Amino acid sequence: MSLDQLARTAYSEDHEAFRQTVRRFMQEEVAPNAAKWEDAGIVDKAVWPKAGELGLLCPTVPEEYGGLGLDFGYNAIVDEEAAYHGGVALGFSLQSDIVVNYIVSYGSEEQKKQWLPKLVSGEVVTAIAMTEPGVGSDLQGIRTTAKKDGNHYVINGSKTYITNGQNADLILVCAKTDTEVQPAWKGVSIILVEADRQGFERGRNLDKIGQDAADTSELFFNDVRVPMTNCLGEEGKGFIYLMSELPQERLSIAVSAQSSAQKAYDDTVEFVRERKAFGKPVIDFQNTRFTLADLKSKLQVGWAHLDWALARHMKKELTPEEGAAAKLWHTELQWEVMDKCLQLHGGAGYMNEYPIARAWRGARVTRIFGGTNEIMKELIGRKL
Amino acid sequence: MSLDQLARTAYSEDHEAFRQTVRRFMQEEVAPNAAKWEDAGIVDKAVWPKAGELGLLCPTVPEEYGGLGLDFGYNAIVDEEAAYHGGVALGFSLQSDIVVNYIVSYGSEEQKKQWLPKLVSGEVVTAIAMTEPGVGSDLQGIRTTAKKDGNHYVINGSKTYITNGQNADLILVCAKTDTEVQPAWKGVSIILVEADRQGFERGRNLDKIGQDAADTSELFFNDVRVPMTNCLGEEGKGFIYLMSELPQERLSIAVSAQSSAQKAYDDTVEFVRERKAFGKPVIDFQNTRFTLADLKSKLQVGWAHLDWALARHMKKELTPEEGAAAKLWHTELQWEVMDKCLQLHGGAGYMNEYPIARAWRGARVTRIFGGTNEIMKELIGRKL
Amino acid sequence: MSLDQLARTAYSEDHEAFRQTVRRFMQEEVAPNAAKWEDAGIVDKAVWPKAGELGLLCPTVPEEYGGLGLDFGYNAIVDEEAAYHGGVALGFSLQSDIVVNYIVSYGSEEQKKQWLPKLVSGEVVTAIAMTEPGVGSDLQGIRTTAKKDGNHYVINGSKTYITNGQNADLILVCAKTDTEVQPAWKGVSIILVEADRQGFERGRNLDKIGQDAADTSELFFNDVRVPMTNCLGEEGKGFIYLMSELPQERLSIAVSAQSSAQKAYDDTVEFVRERKAFGKPVIDFQNTRFTLADLKSKLQVGWAHLDWALARHMKKELTPEEGAAAKLWHTELQWEVMDKCLQLHGGAGYMNEYPIARAWRGARVTRIFGGTNEIMKELIGRKL
Amino acid sequence: MSLDQLARTAYSEDHEAFRQTVRRFMQEEVAPNAAKWEDAGIVDKAVWPKAGELGLLCPTVPEEYGGLGLDFGYNAIVDEEAAYHGGVALGFSLQSDIVVNYIVSYGSEEQKKQWLPKLVSGEVVTAIAMTEPGVGSDLQGIRTTAKKDGNHYVINGSKTYITNGQNADLILVCAKTDTEVQPAWKGVSIILVEADRQGFERGRNLDKIGQDAADTSELFFNDVRVPMTNCLGEEGKGFIYLMSELPQERLSIAVSAQSSAQKAYDDTVEFVRERKAFGKPVIDFQNTRFTLADLKSKLQVGWAHLDWALARHMKKELTPEEGAAAKLWHTELQWEVMDKCLQLHGGAGYMNEYPIARAWRGARVTRIFGGTNEIMKELIGRKL
Repeated sequence: MSLDQLARTAYSEDHEAFRQTVRRFMQEEVAPNAAKWEDAGIVDKAVWPKAGELGLLCPTVPEEYGGLGLDFGYNAIVDEEAAYHGGVALGFSLQSDIVVNYIVSYGSEEQKKQWLPKLVSGEVVTAIAMTEPGVGSDLQGIRTTAKKDGNHYVINGSKTYITNGQNADLILVCAKTDTEVQPAWKGVSIILVEADRQGFERGRNLDKIGQDAADTSELFFNDVRVPMTNCLGEEGKGFIYLMSELPQERLSIAVSAQSSAQKAYDDTVEFVRERKAFGKPVIDFQNTRFTLADLKSKLQVGWAHLDWALARHMKKELTPEEGAAAKLWHTELQWEVMDKCLQLHGGAGYMNEYPIARAWRGARVTRIFGGTNEIMKELIGRKL
Repeated sequence: MSLDQLARTAYSEDHEAFRQTVRRFMQEEVAPNAAKWEDAGIVDKAVWPKAGELGLLCPTVPEEYGGLGLDFGYNAIVDEEAAYHGGVALGFSLQSDIVVNYIVSYGSEEQKKQWLPKLVSGEVVTAIAMTEPGVGSDLQGIRTTAKKDGNHYVINGSKTYITNGQNADLILVCAKTDTEVQPAWKGVSIILVEADRQGFERGRNLDKIGQDAADTSELFFNDVRVPMTNCLGEEGKGFIYLMSELPQERLSIAVSAQSSAQKAYDDTVEFVRERKAFGKPVIDFQNTRFTLADLKSKLQVGWAHLDWALARHMKKELTPEEGAAAKLWHTELQWEVMDKCLQLHGGAGYMNEYPIARAWRGARVTRIFGGTNEIMKELIGRKL
Repeated sequence: MSLDQLARTAYSEDHEAFRQTVRRFMQEEVAPNAAKWEDAGIVDKAVWPKAGELGLLCPTVPEEYGGLGLDFGYNAIVDEEAAYHGGVALGFSLQSDIVVNYIVSYGSEEQKKQWLPKLVSGEVVTAIAMTEPGVGSDLQGIRTTAKKDGNHYVINGSKTYITNGQNADLILVCAKTDTEVQPAWKGVSIILVEADRQGFERGRNLDKIGQDAADTSELFFNDVRVPMTNCLGEEGKGFIYLMSELPQERLSIAVSAQSSAQKAYDDTVEFVRERKAFGKPVIDFQNTRFTLADLKSKLQVGWAHLDWALARHMKKELTPEEGAAAKLWHTELQWEVMDKCLQLHGGAGYMNEYPIARAWRGARVTRIFGGTNEIMKELIGRKL
Repeated sequence: MSLDQLARTAYSEDHEAFRQTVRRFMQEEVAPNAAKWEDAGIVDKAVWPKAGELGLLCPTVPEEYGGLGLDFGYNAIVDEEAAYHGGVALGFSLQSDIVVNYIVSYGSEEQKKQWLPKLVSGEVVTAIAMTEPGVGSDLQGIRTTAKKDGNHYVINGSKTYITNGQNADLILVCAKTDTEVQPAWKGVSIILVEADRQGFERGRNLDKIGQDAADTSELFFNDVRVPMTNCLGEEGKGFIYLMSELPQERLSIAVSAQSSAQKAYDDTVEFVRERKAFGKPVIDFQNTRFTLADLKSKLQVGWAHLDWALARHMKKELTPEEGAAAKLWHTELQWEVMDKCLQLHGGAGYMNEYPIARAWRGARVTRIFGGTNEIMKELIGRKL
């Protein structure tokens, strides 16, 4: 079984040709290193330029900035294949599906020229620093400040749960350039901070339930001085910029969720065909077949929806509520698939040596990150 | 809110133009009579030729047999609008989506000429008699026999849960023309029985939980003689014929389920906006918004899947397992939507005067008919 | 199978002896009439004095007022047996478990002497009129008023969803004796209104999804004059009185829910043992056994909890939150049991001639009445 | 909040006095070491004699064999407090609730004298070796053999998922002493193997999703010679012996599951009271309160059931099916509580530094071990 045997509708032949490249990369460069990277708690940074060379990073960046100028379908294919054949949290999607768009959409010409080619090539790894300890997803409540001092900002604050935190060379920091203005969100700006700036410090690479290879970290900013030209777009528009990219972020999460769920399902079908219990293959029990049949139906429904959403997004028609619904639905599906598939593994499912155990642990965060699923419901519900 | 505000992909402009005709019919000819027909336990047969006149019946029948030669999308639109704006079980879909195909696909030229124009015009109402008392969905176990006597069959047996049982003019009867052959399904044939044949008798119009206007009935066959030319296609192939039409039947159920779920959702949003509890509109409670947001997400997913399935079916690519998955998933969704929407109505939801109560009662059967959802899982599971 | 085969802990031998009396009554006087009363939409009022004669009504009323002075366990046994062997909504529990306590706890000596013996004997049927059209369960928002005029109240307003609405001889009406006071609940009083008072009118016996024999009705009060001595307890304390009896009301609902769920389960086990599908009894499918095993486990848990709650209530230790939790949990269990059992009946489950269909329809209201389950969560949640 | 604030019914004052001892031990000797032991993947064996000294191990062992001769309620209290205040997998319950009973019930006088005092004192740690690689819970399919050679058995085979695998001094090995007999279960015997026997080897301490301090391991037996007097009870009765102790094992799992669920719930209530989101405590969102109210109701139900089951078990009335139902229900509850509580923690829930993350990981196995919940359903379902 593999992902190109599904009846998809969102992709062209060019997309599918690209998929083959991506898959080979995942099978040859990623999967064999997965265990090593998970043990280390971080992916080897050398994999980034390798991916960049093959066009796997930031495929939507315009050609004038070193990119391929492709559509989001190419991103989605990287996400799908990474989830299915890579099997490890790479951090690519953060860069390709999320961070790069801020620079493309709101960066100055200088910022674009400086950074985009390096994001595409994998020379530079990026992170975006929003969440703060004890504050959660509430951007208006952030306490990190960027005070003006001459033509510089002086940044102070701490961040947590930052994807690519250890590997990042460039961090997009959400900070308050104005702590007085009401409503509070009008004081939020996004500032580019290079990792070699004085006063920037990486904290712990956090010990998580899963996604072991993801270097999700704490970051600290102690009087970090950056020139005011490092502000992304206009001061005080950070909140609006962040909102504008959320549908794509959420769709990106949905893509990975769906693909990793398919992988867990396929692995489990294989497992229950081979594993015997009480003298017959586990698949011969009606309960097994019913469980898998139900999951298969849901995966079918999921792919159809994902293609609908991808097509809409590529036509710029996907609304924020639709994106939120996609994140909500696909991550809930992912969890249901993971948990039922683990159960069908019996005792083996609880052992980290089995892929299902790692996949299951890794999946638990998707109902939380990118805005918890409760926030998704709040967003959708507000518009009723 | 109405169905054409959704972001659909399966339909052309012609389909959508047709939808307007259908909707007007449902609003003008059906909805105003719904309560009356439900009280009577049967729809007024006069609505059939009216629907026929507008092209709502059997739109896929080739023009040479009086039809419009259209694709299944037109059927689906009738199903959607009937569920959304008609709000009452009409029995059209049985004729248009299921019965007519047997005649088109397997009927003799004579049978086609005789019956198809009348099915299209609504002059003739049809039924298909499969289920028997105490046997359920198990076709191999049917006990109705059609014994040869000269150039006639003599049919004996009883059937139950037959849609359109009281109104039907023509019944496709599943009977065993050979009770010895092994495997047993090779003895099943489909025989056309006109309702005015001697020995044919209609039993009770069954008292059901819902779908009050559907004249689901018992039928009895006591030495009913029909000429052998009334056999549909070849003797002993009934089982195969029935199997061949199941994907469309299941898709048809999925279409109605999805559409009626959307209707219940839309009604409920309106209800909770207006209804107050503890001094504020019910929609202002987070629990209400979360519930509705979750349902809205699922409906979005459902429409995307339905369009995928419709497109596949119109290209003849929908597999039996995919059709079974559609029936399973959309009817489970329908039920979840109905039950949660009823709950959001509070005490009103339990009163038959509210549409949600009727919709909820009506919906309970869709997880059972057309093959129970357990059978769907069995079918999908067998192929793993 | 019957209820005394369970491993109960709440009851004494005396309770269990009483159970035999109750059961015989349900089997002989109720069950044979169930269908007739359901068709009529009301139970024959003659059943009330018959029940009274055997001590089935209001067993907790002190002997000085014509009662037996027993504990709530006797009420619970009537509820259990009615749900299990009666199978029809009788309205007894409203009188015995709820209404009578208001009079016992807050009635004047005169009121007690006048009414309690008749409630016990079944000569008088009672109702309590809280809910109003469009207001729901929000007592503070009621619009029915009782204005003082000399030594009388003049009552105006309308009520809906009133259990025993057609049969009631005496109605406890929640009305505002003070429409100005803040907070608003301080204006609510409970006033006894005899059904023969001028200006009192019964409205429709409502057409409900189920509980067909329950004469749940609208009631209208147009300048109904009653003497001020008809006020129950103190003016303005109605809200407090109502709150004080809620734990018992909720426990009563839990008892019936659990018992009717057990009945549906037992009926279904019998059904699937006898019904065949694909050549074998339905119980031989693993899915059937798993479903029933899961329900059986939950029923076991439910009885244990019910006995715990009954014992606590009889010791006056059950808190309002615990009562709310019981109502919430047992009615959700009831629904799960009903819906899964109906599904295991296949097509038969949708036919009103099967007990499961009636039980299923009847059960849907228990998540709504006595305070919706959302209100239960709100009550429990507030105390966290 | 602590466990003695609940309205329990199973325990006497003596039990509750014992609880205080146990709690102090858990708070002082276990909890402070939890992190260390989890990092090490094993508990420090020195904790066993400390627990033994206080009477926490095997309290049911008769006094003549060095025990306290108490009832199972004392075991349950150790389980409850370990789950609530210890927060780490200790392996005590395997010894106290399961292994010791085999020796008490079926051991020879000599075996009892030799081993029971040491099991009570904690000088000896035990394990029971049933599961084999690729075979799962199917005892009839085990491939480990014990061949007779003179007055010795020679044991060969491998076991996996063995609790206390690294720490164990004495292993009860399930092996086939007869590989020919039909039915196969009649060939299974239980043989005591001391860990210092030649040819016995411990394999990997398995890397699991959770329960990090549990040294669940592989064990290998290569020509391990033990005298025939090491056979527990009669040859060929191993299967029957194992079956006889299962209800208590399952009840033991239920106890721990319920208690750890209560702990997660209590921790979460505290967390959401303190954690703010969007400017207010998380508990102020209706969704939070509803979720917690629902869980609180289920926990209330769970304690009532547990006490019912404990009381029944102490009277030797708990049936195997009731024990299976308890294991099934309480572990499903535990999981629901864990997963919803983790979600209410947001991003923090995914971090291993929070107790909820460890509790959640640890809880996942309880639906699998001691017989998967599917096997519980099978057992209950078979008896219908």
